[in-house]
Amino acid sequence: MADSLAERLLAGDKRALARGISLVEDDDPEGWALVKEVYPRTGKAAVVGFTGPPGAGKSTLIGALIRHQRALDRQVAVLSIDPSSPFRGGALLGDRIRLSEHFLDPGVFIRSMATRGALGGLAEAALQTALLMDAAGKDDVFLETVGVGQAEVDVIDHADSVVLVLIPGSGDSIQALKAGVMEIPDVIVVNKADHPLTDTMVREIRGVLSLAPQHGWRVPIVKTEAARGEGVEELAAKLAEHRAYVEAEGTLSERRRRNLLSEVLGIATMRMRRALEASLEQDPEIQELLDEVVARRLDPSSAATAVLARSESAHNP
Amino acid sequence: MADSLAERLLAGDKRALARGISLVEDDDPEGWALVKEVYPRTGKAAVVGFTGPPGAGKSTLIGALIRHQRALDRQVAVLSIDPSSPFRGGALLGDRIRLSEHFLDPGVFIRSMATRGALGGLAEAALQTALLMDAAGKDDVFLETVGVGQAEVDVIDHADSVVLVLIPGSGDSIQALKAGVMEIPDVIVVNKADHPLTDTMVREIRGVLSLAPQHGWRVPIVKTEAARGEGVEELAAKLAEHRAYVEAEGTLSERRRRNLLSEVLGIATMRMRRALEASLEQDPEIQELLDEVVARRLDPSSAATAVLARSESAHNP
Repeated sequence: MADSLAERLLAGDKRALARGISLVEDDDPEGWALVKEVYPRTGKAAVVGFTGPPGAGKSTLIGALIRHQRALDRQVAVLSIDPSSPFRGGALLGDRIRLSEHFLDPGVFIRSMATRGALGGLAEAALQTALLMDAAGKDDVFLETVGVGQAEVDVIDHADSVVLVLIPGSGDSIQALKAGVMEIPDVIVVNKADHPLTDTMVREIRGVLSLAPQHGWRVPIVKTEAARGEGVEELAAKLAEHRAYVEAEGTLSERRRRNLLSEVLGIATMRMRRALEASLEQDPEIQELLDEVVARRLDPSSAATAVLARSESAHNP
Repeated sequence: MADSLAERLLAGDKRALARGISLVEDDDPEGWALVKEVYPRTGKAAVVGFTGPPGAGKSTLIGALIRHQRALDRQVAVLSIDPSSPFRGGALLGDRIRLSEHFLDPGVFIRSMATRGALGGLAEAALQTALLMDAAGKDDVFLETVGVGQAEVDVIDHADSVVLVLIPGSGDSIQALKAGVMEIPDVIVVNKADHPLTDTMVREIRGVLSLAPQHGWRVPIVKTEAARGEGVEELAAKLAEHRAYVEAEGTLSERRRRNLLSEVLGIATMRMRRALEASLEQDPEIQELLDEVVARRLDPSSAATAVLARSESAHNP
């Protein structure tokens, strides 16, 4: 008798993990059942989120960090949230290639997930995936996103530590931090630190951080040249420090509690929205309602009320 | 007998419009009723969305554009979506002040709305507000957001034309456009065009646009110095051109149809989520469920199923 998917995943089988993630990504009931089965074995991995504008070198940095963690014999998994693009240049594909040196290492698991196709359920699929990676015995789970879009913010929010990766020239991100539009991360990296404007950038970031309310943890700024591995050891050290800090303060469990609550709410909202969309598509009366809205005879709010009423009656057998 | 709020709003009464927007912002049933009453009188205004990183000078540009439109005797309304910030510097407040020269002009109506407080309903409140401005007889409705966060993207999506405002140094935005993370707008402005790197910036944008699929409309790049009014006439001309183009192509009604559909869906989803959150807060059994999730005894998906079941039974009297 063959071992079940869950048993193989818990034993660290790479193919079982890959299969499980595909099930979760496809919103297959078997995927949810798998997460349910392995869930009691989660909560051990250090989950680190990496965010920052495209082109900042996040993948190269993660590649270098993987090398560092592997030297310490830690098992690593990476989930890259890949922005779906109507016209993709080579940039993001190139990023994938930068991680390829680790593809053959059995202690490293790399997966990417497209924002398109997940249909509003991206954050949920990503978080279920992180749980599966955790259950499969990975010591480090790295989540990579570009910091745009609510779904991606939701993903990053679920990390124990958040790293913002910038480069000299990331003026828009600095402005967003300054204006409070972007949240202050736990660690800031200035990558491509061989650029002559690096120190100007570091000064600007210091200026922004000095305006932020202090919550005990002082956000470190780490200069890296990820392509040459420079500064990566310091980054690893700062991440370990941050983790020790949140564990000691009890904020780790607080943070995880808040994140799990929002995950439950997120899954529930996603399911409600899907049920609603399905009922919209199939129901000719709903289509007529929408025609009335377009003709300005029925207002959107009244249409929403009617849509909800019909959807509810359709779902209460 | 006094005129009703709707009658006064339709007659262009500024105080009635302000009152109506407050009702919508507070999610007051009277606000929804008001929109319902005036909805048949909407659809006439040209709705233009302005997005771009903080500090790009959007408010100054809008101020200059208002002056231009007022000289043509057009009535203008502005809705600024104000990112809620845990530590706000002077930057955004300064932006508000830049519009202050228009505060006393009866042909100009300016309002800002905070992202925080709208509790997930920001996009809906903003769109209802735009409808009220339209019904009050405004010829131009300008929506201003920083281009971060799904709610803000949703707001901008509802404009007939979208203007992306950049400045020399907006490297992150260029990268986001290039990677397809940010959607291509209808008009791109390079503001603060007295900066020596302006032409480099324009060349970079041209490079990105040349990679984008062409859909008939060629995205113009307009150089402005909003603080001195330079380039504003050209911007107004390009906006008029874009509007004529979408009207001629029939894409305006297509765009509005799509936007109205997503608004109906958005309002419905918001209501479902609110009902769910309300049931979470009050129900001790739900709180116990969540404790089980935190203790890793119950997985988030099963918890969501249980939450939905309880919420449904609570809402079907």
